[in-house]
Amino acid sequence: MDSATQASMNGAESLVRTLLDSGVDTCFANPGTSEMHFVAALDRITGADGRGMRCVLGLFEGAVSGMADGYARMAEKPAATLLHCGPGMANALANMHNARRARTPMVNIVGDHATYHRAHDAPLTSDVEGAARPFSDWVQGGTSSRSIAADGAAAVQAARTPPGQVATLVLPANTAWEQADGPAPPLPVPARAMPAPAGIETAARLLRDAGAQAVLLLAGPAVATDAGQRAALRIATATGCKLIAQGSNARFARGQGRVPIERVPYVIDIALGTLKGFRVAVLAGMKAPVGFFAYPGKPGLMLPPGCATHELARIEQDVVGGLEALAEALGAARDVKLPDPGPRPEVPRTAAVSPEALAMTLAALLPEGAIVADESVSFGRGFFPNTHAAAPHDWLQVTGGAIGCGLPLAAGAAIACPDRKVVCLEADGSAMYTLQALWTMARERSDVCVTILSNRKYQILLGELAGVGANPGRTALDMMDLSNPDLDWPTIARGMGVEGARATSIAEYADLFGAAMARRGPFLIELVI
Amino acid sequence: MDSATQASMNGAESLVRTLLDSGVDTCFANPGTSEMHFVAALDRITGADGRGMRCVLGLFEGAVSGMADGYARMAEKPAATLLHCGPGMANALANMHNARRARTPMVNIVGDHATYHRAHDAPLTSDVEGAARPFSDWVQGGTSSRSIAADGAAAVQAARTPPGQVATLVLPANTAWEQADGPAPPLPVPARAMPAPAGIETAARLLRDAGAQAVLLLAGPAVATDAGQRAALRIATATGCKLIAQGSNARFARGQGRVPIERVPYVIDIALGTLKGFRVAVLAGMKAPVGFFAYPGKPGLMLPPGCATHELARIEQDVVGGLEALAEALGAARDVKLPDPGPRPEVPRTAAVSPEALAMTLAALLPEGAIVADESVSFGRGFFPNTHAAAPHDWLQVTGGAIGCGLPLAAGAAIACPDRKVVCLEADGSAMYTLQALWTMARERSDVCVTILSNRKYQILLGELAGVGANPGRTALDMMDLSNPDLDWPTIARGMGVEGARATSIAEYADLFGAAMARRGPFLIELVI
Repeated sequence: MDSATQASMNGAESLVRTLLDSGVDTCFANPGTSEMHFVAALDRITGADGRGMRCVLGLFEGAVSGMADGYARMAEKPAATLLHCGPGMANALANMHNARRARTPMVNIVGDHATYHRAHDAPLTSDVEGAARPFSDWVQGGTSSRSIAADGAAAVQAARTPPGQVATLVLPANTAWEQADGPAPPLPVPARAMPAPAGIETAARLLRDAGAQAVLLLAGPAVATDAGQRAALRIATATGCKLIAQGSNARFARGQGRVPIERVPYVIDIALGTLKGFRVAVLAGMKAPVGFFAYPGKPGLMLPPGCATHELARIEQDVVGGLEALAEALGAARDVKLPDPGPRPEVPRTAAVSPEALAMTLAALLPEGAIVADESVSFGRGFFPNTHAAAPHDWLQVTGGAIGCGLPLAAGAAIACPDRKVVCLEADGSAMYTLQALWTMARERSDVCVTILSNRKYQILLGELAGVGANPGRTALDMMDLSNPDLDWPTIARGMGVEGARATSIAEYADLFGAAMARRGPFLIELVI
Repeated sequence: MDSATQASMNGAESLVRTLLDSGVDTCFANPGTSEMHFVAALDRITGADGRGMRCVLGLFEGAVSGMADGYARMAEKPAATLLHCGPGMANALANMHNARRARTPMVNIVGDHATYHRAHDAPLTSDVEGAARPFSDWVQGGTSSRSIAADGAAAVQAARTPPGQVATLVLPANTAWEQADGPAPPLPVPARAMPAPAGIETAARLLRDAGAQAVLLLAGPAVATDAGQRAALRIATATGCKLIAQGSNARFARGQGRVPIERVPYVIDIALGTLKGFRVAVLAGMKAPVGFFAYPGKPGLMLPPGCATHELARIEQDVVGGLEALAEALGAARDVKLPDPGPRPEVPRTAAVSPEALAMTLAALLPEGAIVADESVSFGRGFFPNTHAAAPHDWLQVTGGAIGCGLPLAAGAAIACPDRKVVCLEADGSAMYTLQALWTMARERSDVCVTILSNRKYQILLGELAGVGANPGRTALDMMDLSNPDLDWPTIARGMGVEGARATSIAEYADLFGAAMARRGPFLIELVI
């Protein structure tokens, strides 16, 4: 503590100190009036280690919550967000939804009116807790400056409880400015529990019996960690089962030295084809895969009828431990040879712009340890097969289907890992949702290379329109058309302090991307596709 | 109906037809997969008058709901919005909050998963109705394609019920694509009820007794219409009472020929000073004024202790009729002379950039019939006194305190009134929230001149920080600083297809603004303040 002593702390100071002592040392913020005491406390309060809260400003709350998501996926601990009243929090909800689906730990501090002011129904009054609930795992409304520190400790505990939760604490202004009794001690976080041995035995029996007719479906730490992937590979090698990851993953360890694992495809008919013929599915950290949407006359469940499913480990359990125990139960060899992904591709300089050519270019040029934040939507569905041979990297996906996640994910990951190159693959339509993150990248001098995949339409919707059997006319097509006028991404980026350029061929793109890999700081490439 | 006949309609078609027949003919949209049948229906369905739905695309849902607000404030009827699932609607909530506080009629159509798909908990699944409720006056979840048309008619009825409501209808995908029984007839909308005669008599007695110690507080139609303002002026002339409008108004008729009415000030100490000494307050369409926020040691209610309050008309009642009845009860003269606002100001070309100089410039150059969409926040608090003598215009304010409203309000107003010049006064920090509206202005060739008031900080928060007695350090100040890097607004606008330029003096600004008034189409001026 700098100038504030425990005896004279206000609620905001007690909360900041509690967050720091609980291991939350980074705050993504877009504050308003009701958060002014919290903001003022940031300069006065340090943790037991003498270090204060790192604050990162976002110029829109959707950028703020998305950055907190990207940060936590890479830092493996929660950040705080600081948001202003119900409408400010509402702007953050879509990326809170994505974070919740990613099982990201997150602590949202939402300032609100003083408790005694709510009855006046001032213009900004709203039901903050009610609005938070559909997009949070844990919600609490602060009631007093004397208990707000304990509320904060409980919020961090909730956020860190496996598999990771979105915790939202409402901070009425008077609970921030009135007198506190000092910080609250950190609360214990439950460990991930091992799955029951009987379930591991069942999985072993099912996989042994079904062999190549079995699929081991992987999610969470099973794909995010080398240990999880290695255990899965041991199981596949021992039994002949197929390994498939869920469609969207919070974090996926990929590239050379990792197990090349495909995902459940997004397009329903392709997914049904991929999963056809399996009679056993063992689930490691996920539920049986379902269609992203329902389509007339098509099934909602993607596994074939009659396929037996067995849950090896729930997402909040020790998924990696469960896989390792299963490998042991199967007597699987400990040393397994990784499938050879082949040589690192060359840049296909003369190829037309296509998902495959772009993926090969990325695989050729990605530096070791890169973090890929991927919101490439329809264009990016085929990126995985051609990037298995890239240098080792981590790949972050949009997990909840709420677009506007990619740019903030990248910005947040860069805060968490300042020594790693971040590569953002971003569809133009989605980029527009939270383009404010570009400004934060410029301010923080984040080492992020953004590629805008510019098709100037909501391409995914044209596919979906066909998928639901609808027959579009001019008005309908206009609703999916982002041209007229074209968005000029290098210019938009420059307006927010980020340099950029446009590429219309793979050769141009490779030159720009290669140069961006060789320098530090944010850069944007609009690739016209 | 074009190609679809009533017998073969699906739910989406029945809903579009019902909206049209109920008078909703404009839809602001940011659709996704679950809305594809609704989108497809737009080209197939026309109303009884043979005209179809006008659709306006926004590249972010916050722009969509804000445009629907601006449209309805000027068109005096609801638009529909089309939004995608819980997270897409979440992006629209902040401006739904503003619309609700403005008493704007609005019909939100929120596509969602097919009813039978929800149990699968697919990635985009959320509690849409739960999330809508804090920011809607009416929420309903569609359950069947056979009843969705009736749900739509009920939504329009709810939206049009005085004083105007935000109605949100959830449209599960299968209720859109399954068979319907045809459209539903429009439902009756209740008229505004006259306030009870006894209350009018009471108001007359109170005002007569208190004379200049009384204030008549005005909101809603009392300030939006010439009739309301004239009646209020008759009352003030007859009794000597003061006229003051609420702080933020959905629509305010202003300029030459209108009654120059000041508003309750935003800053608490100034507001307390303005209202000091009144012993009677008569309320026409509003509640007793309260502080926008609570401040330590300051009151939440702005009228002085002991001031008698009397509600002449509630906002959902016939406020103008109540004022006219009160004027009659007072025997007020029907012909009253408008206070002379003085001559239209000249542009103060050599003055330093200040709120007063900017207001005089606007007053000098605003064309007759202009619509001002005002989200000028701290800089704009003094605009009213110097614009009373401008040409007649309508002024739209941010009503719910959720920033990111101004640009969409302007874009929506321009759709409603294509023959009127729209002038948007927009603070730089607020502009960043929904800057996507610029693209819609470019696409629709909207006749909007945007002025970005560029102070490169959250100026209001610096004031609020002082207001709550907090003492900021470097980290706190960084959270209010929008420089490093500076936002380059003409460049950002150009990237979205809107021409722009920067002014650093009143003379430069006046030249640019004057030129923008003389041409059609969107233009942006960044005024460095």
